[in-house]
Amino acid sequence: MVGCYREGVELVLSGHRQMERNLKLTVAYDGTSYHGFQAQDGKGLPTIQSALEEAWSKLVGERVRMTSSGRTDAGVHARGQVVNFHTSSSSIPEDRVPYAMNSVLPEDIAVVGCEEMPHTFHARFDAIGKRYRYTILNQPFPSPIDRRYTLFVHNPLDVDSMALGAMHLVGRRDFVAVSGNNRELKDTVRTMSACSVRREGAYVWIDMKADGFLYHMARRIAGTLLAVGKGERGPDWVAEVIASRDRNQAGPTLPAHGLCLIEVYYA
Amino acid sequence: MVGCYREGVELVLSGHRQMERNLKLTVAYDGTSYHGFQAQDGKGLPTIQSALEEAWSKLVGERVRMTSSGRTDAGVHARGQVVNFHTSSSSIPEDRVPYAMNSVLPEDIAVVGCEEMPHTFHARFDAIGKRYRYTILNQPFPSPIDRRYTLFVHNPLDVDSMALGAMHLVGRRDFVAVSGNNRELKDTVRTMSACSVRREGAYVWIDMKADGFLYHMARRIAGTLLAVGKGERGPDWVAEVIASRDRNQAGPTLPAHGLCLIEVYYA
Repeated sequence: MVGCYREGVELVLSGHRQMERNLKLTVAYDGTSYHGFQAQDGKGLPTIQSALEEAWSKLVGERVRMTSSGRTDAGVHARGQVVNFHTSSSSIPEDRVPYAMNSVLPEDIAVVGCEEMPHTFHARFDAIGKRYRYTILNQPFPSPIDRRYTLFVHNPLDVDSMALGAMHLVGRRDFVAVSGNNRELKDTVRTMSACSVRREGAYVWIDMKADGFLYHMARRIAGTLLAVGKGERGPDWVAEVIASRDRNQAGPTLPAHGLCLIEVYYA
Repeated sequence: MVGCYREGVELVLSGHRQMERNLKLTVAYDGTSYHGFQAQDGKGLPTIQSALEEAWSKLVGERVRMTSSGRTDAGVHARGQVVNFHTSSSSIPEDRVPYAMNSVLPEDIAVVGCEEMPHTFHARFDAIGKRYRYTILNQPFPSPIDRRYTLFVHNPLDVDSMALGAMHLVGRRDFVAVSGNNRELKDTVRTMSACSVRREGAYVWIDMKADGFLYHMARRIAGTLLAVGKGERGPDWVAEVIASRDRNQAGPTLPAHGLCLIEVYYA
């Protein structure tokens, strides 16, 4: 069946023609209460994916399987995660889908865009890049209003050094040293097209744009740059870490709640 | 006893001299889970004040009564609320008080400053002004990450008109028309030294600085300017509302969760 959907053909079901639609959703969420994006079958843990699938089922009574641009870890937030799914329901025009979905979704998940795509579109395989932001709140005392979305660091950070360190991450690199110790893909080479650090008031923003991110890569890059910001290491140490290809050299994996998936890019 | 504290004298207790300190705390909080600032005796509802007083009691075993610059309504947030209290405990130097308090406070309340003041200092009577910010999230779809601290408005707002309307609020005015229907003070004249509206991305910030705010005044001003932003009224209508001195003319009192007490000013 799924094969048929992806070929973009019309299915003849019980004697009448029914058009299949491949819908691309842009999704924002507060990851605080979820065990990551991906549904964990049989475990019954709340995930973004299962909440989205349940919302669609509530709306049109159809069980679908949603595919994301990539899982986000437990606690990570998103402003622009992308998801696609195939549906045989035509009851909701795509420009109304966000309103319909948001009327049944919990308030910590929102659909912020919907587009009908060619039947071959695939949120993961077709993604050509992603942008993440890690936010550090850098002031003497914690801020209750920011606590869910920022990592609080009271030591004054040297943001200029962090920015210099970040420049060593731009380009085509083997990022294995800043990846998590996971059953990882063999290919750990990625292209980072932009990596910058800047301060805006008490916020220090680490922005990373790459054609792909390895497991824990965004959070370990943030941890590596944080070590530079604290003055524990110089900016050039970042280049050494990458060159070492050794997972034991990099800074720590920072907590999930400071990370946000901002945007996913498609051709 | 409280009288003695405020005279700035040293008390002679059970034969030894004990210095009284009058401590001024600057406090930030996420008001979401609280029934406002002020302790409601006998009701057992969670308030910021009772959480602060309990934290101090946990730290030094002393029951104190804290005085704020003014109550904030249920659900209103603060980055710079000011509180003072008199203590006979000298176990915590004032520069360590924030760290000590934050170690026992829930994570939605933080002490972000502490200063020892003359014994006559009073957080409410000595306040000469306050600054509030009301934040509207103005984009087509809601944002889960911003939902606790912003009012979501999907209609595109005319921020230039709102800014023009806000100019009519600056100066010495009788603000009764934009106050809540409460057993109110007879004197409803206040001086608004600054009132501005500006857009920063999807955020529309309404900033208000005055020598005092009447009950619900900040939220009703925001509601009045929102009516202008939606095009329901022109900017000059704001002047008419104020001149009317009629509580039925103004816009609605916007929800508490978009409001934040930014700073309290002292001479």
